[in-house]
Amino acid sequence: MKIAILTGGVGGSKLALGFYRVTDPSDLTMIVNTGDDVVMHGLHVSPDPDILIYTLADAVNPETGWGFREESFRVAEGLKLYGRETWFRLGDRDLATHIHRTAMLRDGATLSETIDSVVRSLGVQSRILPMSDDPVPTMLETDEGRMHLQDYFVRRRCEPNLRSIQFEGASKARPGAGVIEAIEGAELIVIAPSNPLISIGPVLAIAEIRKTLCRNRERVIAVSPLIGGKSLKGPSDKMMAELGYDVSCVGVARLYAEVCATMVIDPADADQRFSVEALNIRPVVRPTLMQTLADKQRLARAILDIRL
Amino acid sequence: MKIAILTGGVGGSKLALGFYRVTDPSDLTMIVNTGDDVVMHGLHVSPDPDILIYTLADAVNPETGWGFREESFRVAEGLKLYGRETWFRLGDRDLATHIHRTAMLRDGATLSETIDSVVRSLGVQSRILPMSDDPVPTMLETDEGRMHLQDYFVRRRCEPNLRSIQFEGASKARPGAGVIEAIEGAELIVIAPSNPLISIGPVLAIAEIRKTLCRNRERVIAVSPLIGGKSLKGPSDKMMAELGYDVSCVGVARLYAEVCATMVIDPADADQRFSVEALNIRPVVRPTLMQTLADKQRLARAILDIRL
Repeated sequence: MKIAILTGGVGGSKLALGFYRVTDPSDLTMIVNTGDDVVMHGLHVSPDPDILIYTLADAVNPETGWGFREESFRVAEGLKLYGRETWFRLGDRDLATHIHRTAMLRDGATLSETIDSVVRSLGVQSRILPMSDDPVPTMLETDEGRMHLQDYFVRRRCEPNLRSIQFEGASKARPGAGVIEAIEGAELIVIAPSNPLISIGPVLAIAEIRKTLCRNRERVIAVSPLIGGKSLKGPSDKMMAELGYDVSCVGVARLYAEVCATMVIDPADADQRFSVEALNIRPVVRPTLMQTLADKQRLARAILDIRL
Repeated sequence: MKIAILTGGVGGSKLALGFYRVTDPSDLTMIVNTGDDVVMHGLHVSPDPDILIYTLADAVNPETGWGFREESFRVAEGLKLYGRETWFRLGDRDLATHIHRTAMLRDGATLSETIDSVVRSLGVQSRILPMSDDPVPTMLETDEGRMHLQDYFVRRRCEPNLRSIQFEGASKARPGAGVIEAIEGAELIVIAPSNPLISIGPVLAIAEIRKTLCRNRERVIAVSPLIGGKSLKGPSDKMMAELGYDVSCVGVARLYAEVCATMVIDPADADQRFSVEALNIRPVVRPTLMQTLADKQRLARAILDIRL
C-alpha cells in the first residue's frame, strides 16, 4: 500500500519512523517542510528533511530529536573564534550534510536531488521529497519585528509574541519533483502531528499541493499534534494562542478541514469529537502520545487500521 | 625596520616564524602565494595563507607543517559517506576557516579581508597579504594531462612528469591590497625558501609585483630552498629537474636574478657562490637548514645582519 506522509521535523518524524518500521519502507513517500531552510555561514541547512532522514537512519540524537547522536562541535568552536554567529549551533557530522548539500546546489543540483543523495548515503529506504525545490522561507511578524522562523525558533527561543506568519514565495513555488504524483498515487495520505502553523502550514501554502489534497481529501488522515490543548514539545500551542486559533484539536481540525476527511485525536480530547465532526471531519480517537518506539509503531498501525 | 617577506606554505613559513620571533611582528608584512587556492566542496581553501597564519599563531600541526595541531576529522568522515572526493582531507578546525572565508567572500569581502579576519582572530600580529585578490590558479601540464596544482600535489603526490606551469589569470591579476606599498615601504624584502616554481613563481608572475621588486632589487634578499641540490621537503628539486632547470642554488638564482641582488646559500653550496655571483647576485653563505625554532630564528637574524 502506497502511503504519502506530510511532515515537519521532530514531532512528525516520530510517526514517520513508526510507519517506516511497520510497513515496507519503499512504499512510503515523505513530503517535508522546507520553510525552515536557512543559509548559515553560507551553507544551506534544511532542518526538517535532515531531522527526518537522521531519524529514519537511526542516526538522530535521541535526547534532542535533531542532529546526529554522538555529535562533536569542533567546527562550531572555530566559527565562534572567527566571530561568527553561534546561535544556530551546527555539529561536525551535521555540517558534512550541509557542506555536501551546498556544494551540490552550487553545481546545479535541485534541493530534491541533494535530499535524495543524503537519503541514499544514510541508507534510508523511503523516498523523501521536499515540499518544493523553490525557496519558501517562513517569515514571522512578531512584537520584536519581522524575523526568519529559525531566528524566532532557535535564537529567540520562541519568546517574541507572534502576529502573523508568511510563507514567502509560496504563491509562485512549484511542488517538489514527484510530490503531486506521490499524493495522487497514495492509497493513504497522512498529515503527521507536526506544528500545523509552521511545519504543515508551509506545505499547504503551496497551491498545487493544497489543491491535490483537497481533491483527495477522503484519503487524508491528519493526526492532531495537540493533546489536551497542549503541544508535547515545540511551540504549537503558544503560537496558535497568539494568532487567535482555538488551542485544541478542534483548532487544528479547522486549519485542516479543507484537506482532510479524518483526524486522529487523543483520548484526552475525546470530548471534542463532536466539534471535529461538525467540521465535516471524522474524528478517530486513538492514543497519540509517542514516547517509545513501540508508541510510534502502535500509532502507525492504528492509522493503517482506519477504514477510509 | 619594516620588512616584507614573500612566501609560500610550509618551507617559507619556517623563516617567516623566525622573523616573527626575532623582530617586532608589527613591522612584518608577509605577501603570500594564493596560486594554490582551490575550491573544495564549494569552500574556498587558501592553503598557503592558512599555513602561514597557523604557523605564526603557534597553532600549526608540528608533524606536517600544515593544518591545526590536535585536529579532528569528523566532517571529513561525513563527506566521505556522502561520496565526496576525499583526497584533499580537511580537518574540522581547519574547515571553520574555510567556511568563514567562503561565507565572507559570498557576502562581498575580498580575499585580503578574509585573510585579515583569520589573522586577527588567531592573534597574529603581522600583516598577511595575499599576492592578489583575483584568482590566479596554478595549472600544470603533465604527462598525465593538465591539472590544478593541488590535484598534482595532493591527489597525485607529485608523481606525474611536469611539462609546464601556467599561472592562469596572472597577466590580468592586480596585486593584493597593500602589497605594492608594503614592498616599496620595506627596508628589507625577503624571498623565503619556498618552492621557486609554484610558491614564489605565482607571486612573481603578477607583473606589478615583479616590476616593483625589480625596481627595489638592491633591497631584496632571497634564500635558496635547495641545499646540496635537494629540497628538504616538497618537490622543488623534482619539478625543477623535469622543467630543465639547473637543480641547485644557481638554478634558483637564475629564476630570481631579475628581482634580487642578494641570495643566501647554504654552506653545502658554498662552492657555487661564484656561479651565483656571475648572475649579478651577491651570494651570502649561511646555514639555511631550519629544523628547530632556534634554527629559524638564527637564519632570520643572519639575514637581518646582512648589510644591503
